[in-house]
Amino acid sequence: MRSLKLTVAYDGSAYRGWQIQRDGPTIQGELERAIHSVTGESVRVTASGRTDAGVHALGQVASCSLESQLPDDTLVRALNANLRLDIRVLSVQTLPRGFDAIRDSVSKRYRYLIQDGPICDVFLRRYCWHLPTRLDIDPMRQASQHLVGTHDFACFQTSGSPRKSTVRCVREISIDHEIHFLSQVLVIEIEANGFLYNMARNIVGTLVRIGQRRESVDWPLTLLAARDRRLAGPTAPAHGLYLLRVDYAA
Amino acid sequence: MRSLKLTVAYDGSAYRGWQIQRDGPTIQGELERAIHSVTGESVRVTASGRTDAGVHALGQVASCSLESQLPDDTLVRALNANLRLDIRVLSVQTLPRGFDAIRDSVSKRYRYLIQDGPICDVFLRRYCWHLPTRLDIDPMRQASQHLVGTHDFACFQTSGSPRKSTVRCVREISIDHEIHFLSQVLVIEIEANGFLYNMARNIVGTLVRIGQRRESVDWPLTLLAARDRRLAGPTAPAHGLYLLRVDYAA
Repeated sequence: MRSLKLTVAYDGSAYRGWQIQRDGPTIQGELERAIHSVTGESVRVTASGRTDAGVHALGQVASCSLESQLPDDTLVRALNANLRLDIRVLSVQTLPRGFDAIRDSVSKRYRYLIQDGPICDVFLRRYCWHLPTRLDIDPMRQASQHLVGTHDFACFQTSGSPRKSTVRCVREISIDHEIHFLSQVLVIEIEANGFLYNMARNIVGTLVRIGQRRESVDWPLTLLAARDRRLAGPTAPAHGLYLLRVDYAA
Repeated sequence: MRSLKLTVAYDGSAYRGWQIQRDGPTIQGELERAIHSVTGESVRVTASGRTDAGVHALGQVASCSLESQLPDDTLVRALNANLRLDIRVLSVQTLPRGFDAIRDSVSKRYRYLIQDGPICDVFLRRYCWHLPTRLDIDPMRQASQHLVGTHDFACFQTSGSPRKSTVRCVREISIDHEIHFLSQVLVIEIEANGFLYNMARNIVGTLVRIGQRRESVDWPLTLLAARDRRLAGPTAPAHGLYLLRVDYAA
């Protein structure tokens, strides 16, 4: 048996999320099916984290154990030939036995795209949160810096998903404008040693309220101290979120 | 009656092209339906040119005559409220009577997107021509300059669509790299005083053969002189093409 590290990109629009469900297609289900088609082996594929329905990935990392001795590059081509075009295996790497995509990850980076303008861009409608009025980027940037560092992020955890600890270390939050097609897009990237359930989307929803000048730049300080999810901003929609990168100890 | 100039963006993926067909949805059909829903008027909408099935637009221009006295901005909002999200009216302008989007246009600019890399980007699969090997941009740029100016473009006209004259003036061809999502995309823009049927896609197909080093930089000179469609490159697929802009005399 060998341990594999798969780096995977997907357009989450058509899927019920990463994890296999009884009804509807999932990324995990499609990958396990493709591996079976290529190797004849029925394996369980573990992701660094289960993305929700509609969430995209540019660099999700998954692990599995395989008997097949097909070379890494051959596996990439063969898996892609057995997947729909909305899921692509970007790379396969054989690692020392026991590599685990969840346990071994040391940090993750998410990207969130917002198109803030009066008319929703036809080419971005599946890939950005569309808000009809412009957001004020400066207060969003200032507010985001209150979240950088080691804090208790309980206020940004969607309830019903308890974790042992709600303390996480946010390494960086960047907020910039990019042009996609003809539209200006606000790009928020958040890197942390781990994310609570919906934490990235809840941080974005909170920053948006500050960009709309409905809340002050110091609001995140109040929220962190209160540790109460009901006080923070709404959960930003899934279709603007991308798992950009997962890092592992060298 | 007033004359309207509508600027329209659309994702052509789901449509049979601009022009109304007996079977399947069209951009013209959807716009005429939306105008009827908003104003109760049954009008004919004329585009600057009929885009083919699958072709996109960032700035198509259309004209129609309307009795309704709704203000331009109100029309934009009302039409968009009656259209699917893959068609957006970007602006409505009331012009002197008799404005005609075809007859009055003085130039058009098309954009063509190619993703040249081994793995098709999941977010660009509907919006770029994917070619698995990198194109060589320098010979493409050099070759494209042979096409700039007033020439007989008969070799780039798909047969079965005769026009009185096959002479057109190409004002500019630019070829650059841009980053879309995580992929490098080759962006070809062509501006001309008019385009023969499939001319933009046939020029792109020809430039790609030069970028693949299958033909020399001076090949376009031979093609222009020969005036024979069968000698030029293949027609590039529809889903990489965007009508970017249509210009009118001031």
